[in-house]
Amino acid sequence: MAKPAKKLVIVTEKLLLKKIAKIIEKAGATGYTVVDAGGKGSRNVRSAGTPDVSDTYLNVKIEVLTDSLEMALAISDEVAMKFFDDYSGIVYLSDAEVLNAHKFCGPDGC
Amino acid sequence: MAKPAKKLVIVTEKLLLKKIAKIIEKAGATGYTVVDAGGKGSRNVRSAGTPDVSDTYLNVKIEVLTDSLEMALAISDEVAMKFFDDYSGIVYLSDAEVLNAHKFCGPDGC
Amino acid sequence: MAKPAKKLVIVTEKLLLKKIAKIIEKAGATGYTVVDAGGKGSRNVRSAGTPDVSDTYLNVKIEVLTDSLEMALAISDEVAMKFFDDYSGIVYLSDAEVLNAHKFCGPDGC
Repeated sequence: MAKPAKKLVIVTEKLLLKKIAKIIEKAGATGYTVVDAGGKGSRNVRSAGTPDVSDTYLNVKIEVLTDSLEMALAISDEVAMKFFDDYSGIVYLSDAEVLNAHKFCGPDGC
Repeated sequence: MAKPAKKLVIVTEKLLLKKIAKIIEKAGATGYTVVDAGGKGSRNVRSAGTPDVSDTYLNVKIEVLTDSLEMALAISDEVAMKFFDDYSGIVYLSDAEVLNAHKFCGPDGC
Repeated sequence: MAKPAKKLVIVTEKLLLKKIAKIIEKAGATGYTVVDAGGKGSRNVRSAGTPDVSDTYLNVKIEVLTDSLEMALAISDEVAMKFFDDYSGIVYLSDAEVLNAHKFCGPDGC
């Protein structure tokens, strides 16, 4: 029942969330998880020019489980190309195994 | 000192947290971590029937480090069986290595 | 373009965040991500002596991507040595692959 998957993690500035969500959906991923995050990146300052204080959670961590490495790479490349010249961010990948998922029973069946 | 472990991740609706915590404890896991999460699942709507907007953090991401694959699978199967017909959710597994943990020194020693 | 990395995860009490951030920076890591977390550890009580209720998010989950295993182990050992006699916490490691990162263009070039 376990199904190998790639877990793509995007940590970047919160204001990009909606645009990145569109990229993820367009790529065909069935879902993603978003968590508010703080932290510090390699620039020490955020794009707004203010210091990056850990207490202000202005970043998001977005996780996407994809069936294929190709889908993960496509999302990563588009996000980096569109945003990482101007905004802080990092994208990384790890292996996962999906054990159980909510069964989708829609108009087209389960 | 490093100890191989399985990291089980459950992303589901927040209202299930207490019930899932009981399943985790019953299975014998020594701890878990909970983070508020938003996102979008394969149904596009949450069990409440409202659209799943990324800005509303009504999901939780629960992480459990288990010593054995068996314990991880037992938790996953019980959570899926009990809740995933009626609620959105996904359970996945990855490998981890525990480096250091708080030393528990209780009445029975350390 | 993908670059193998070690992802170090530290879950511990929130009041330690600034001290741990300093340890991470001193070790030479270029960034870290912080997320508020709740949960339950092996002691059932937090260092404050109050019950560890999942609804109170007094823990943090700190993630650090490091180039080398040595850096990850150095951070882990210093955090554990300094804090885990007195505070709840766990440190674990997993493999990751960095796909894309914000290009740092500072005084020294890109």
